[in-house]
Amino acid sequence: MSERVVSACLLVIGNEILSGRTQDKNLAAIAGQLNEWGIRLSEARVIPDVAETIIEALNEVRRRFDYVFTTGGIGPTHDDITSQCVARAFGLEHCLHPEAQRILEAHYGPGQLNEARLRMAMTPQGARLIENPISAAPGFQLENVFVLAGIPRVMQAMLQSLEGRLAGGEPRRSVTAKVYLPEGVLAADLRQLQESYPSIEIGSYPFHEDGRYGSRLVLSGTDAPTLSSVAEKLEALIDRLQGEYMWEGG
Amino acid sequence: MSERVVSACLLVIGNEILSGRTQDKNLAAIAGQLNEWGIRLSEARVIPDVAETIIEALNEVRRRFDYVFTTGGIGPTHDDITSQCVARAFGLEHCLHPEAQRILEAHYGPGQLNEARLRMAMTPQGARLIENPISAAPGFQLENVFVLAGIPRVMQAMLQSLEGRLAGGEPRRSVTAKVYLPEGVLAADLRQLQESYPSIEIGSYPFHEDGRYGSRLVLSGTDAPTLSSVAEKLEALIDRLQGEYMWEGG
Repeated sequence: MSERVVSACLLVIGNEILSGRTQDKNLAAIAGQLNEWGIRLSEARVIPDVAETIIEALNEVRRRFDYVFTTGGIGPTHDDITSQCVARAFGLEHCLHPEAQRILEAHYGPGQLNEARLRMAMTPQGARLIENPISAAPGFQLENVFVLAGIPRVMQAMLQSLEGRLAGGEPRRSVTAKVYLPEGVLAADLRQLQESYPSIEIGSYPFHEDGRYGSRLVLSGTDAPTLSSVAEKLEALIDRLQGEYMWEGG
Repeated sequence: MSERVVSACLLVIGNEILSGRTQDKNLAAIAGQLNEWGIRLSEARVIPDVAETIIEALNEVRRRFDYVFTTGGIGPTHDDITSQCVARAFGLEHCLHPEAQRILEAHYGPGQLNEARLRMAMTPQGARLIENPISAAPGFQLENVFVLAGIPRVMQAMLQSLEGRLAGGEPRRSVTAKVYLPEGVLAADLRQLQESYPSIEIGSYPFHEDGRYGSRLVLSGTDAPTLSSVAEKLEALIDRLQGEYMWEGG
């Protein structure tokens, strides 16, 4: 019954996220999109704009996960070093990608493609471009590594353009019950339910809303009939504890 | 001139963040608070509720960074496994902490401290508690590892209670200029400025607001006079490029 999970790791590259100045929005968007493609985001790392750190992290995770996505650090300024770090991590030359150069020439028009902007046309040798329908400067793919922009709407457009380019497994489905019982009251029964159905992941998250306390219970898995069974067992369990609940959907 | 940076790593533990269902808010809060204490958040990892993954990551980063903070996984349900994983990572017994037990007994009142809730009084042997003024169940410190709650307001209260318990360096200061020039126009001069002042970090982040494009330039460093000098040079540079700008402050 157990099928192989297709895994992914996200490297969020950028001092602005680590300093807390900018709130990352890409993790959630990537996790959601990958899930639709049957790929599970298994880890994410936020790392600074430091070449050695980027190279080391990339070389570790690209061997460990089926896919690696990076966001950030592909603009024209001195702190944009992702592309050259990917080249170094793979031991490849970092060179002008003719197709990327053509795209940027068309985008910026005569005389505007200065040296800094031309850096955005440089990729590791042999990279395959990822289209950027928003601001032209492309991302790229090298083996199992996908290098995306940091700006959320550019990142999302790039990610969508990868539709069909990644091999996924069965998508995970999930249902969420909002239960007005504290976790401490539910815990023993939930543990038993989890042990009875190891293929369904049961997550419990306390909430406090409008002066009421409770637990959000998330059931997720790839097999719809099993998921339904567990949801029914959960309803019975909550009824037995005389709890109030509502399903919040997928 | 170069002083040692006191570094920290954050482990965000929880499937709910990795799935994209819940947006992490703790990274930014921790980064900001640590910065005030002169500690730099140097990396953050989001990892699932999987024991082996937690143990391996913890053992790697606790040797690599001065401080490690974890968030999440310290509640009463089956998916809360952080505390026992910390014990396993350190090779310590996971046992009832008498002080934590007293705190929970007082909080829940007679007959309400069931087995699941009592799990929240278990720590690795020898751990020092971290007060939780919001919902009682404490976090704990073991050597350089600080185990905090995942719920943002509980996490923040725990973090604040650590005031004076961590040894930091010089706090970083930063100033941000919002410049109405594209990065590609600024890039060459910015690179030169960065090369002239390596102790000040210059970050450049494109923005698009109210139909106008530009770059947010963040200068940061520990030495206030040097920071001021670089800010002045930056103003001169923008004037020379006939750009419009405003300082957004710290």
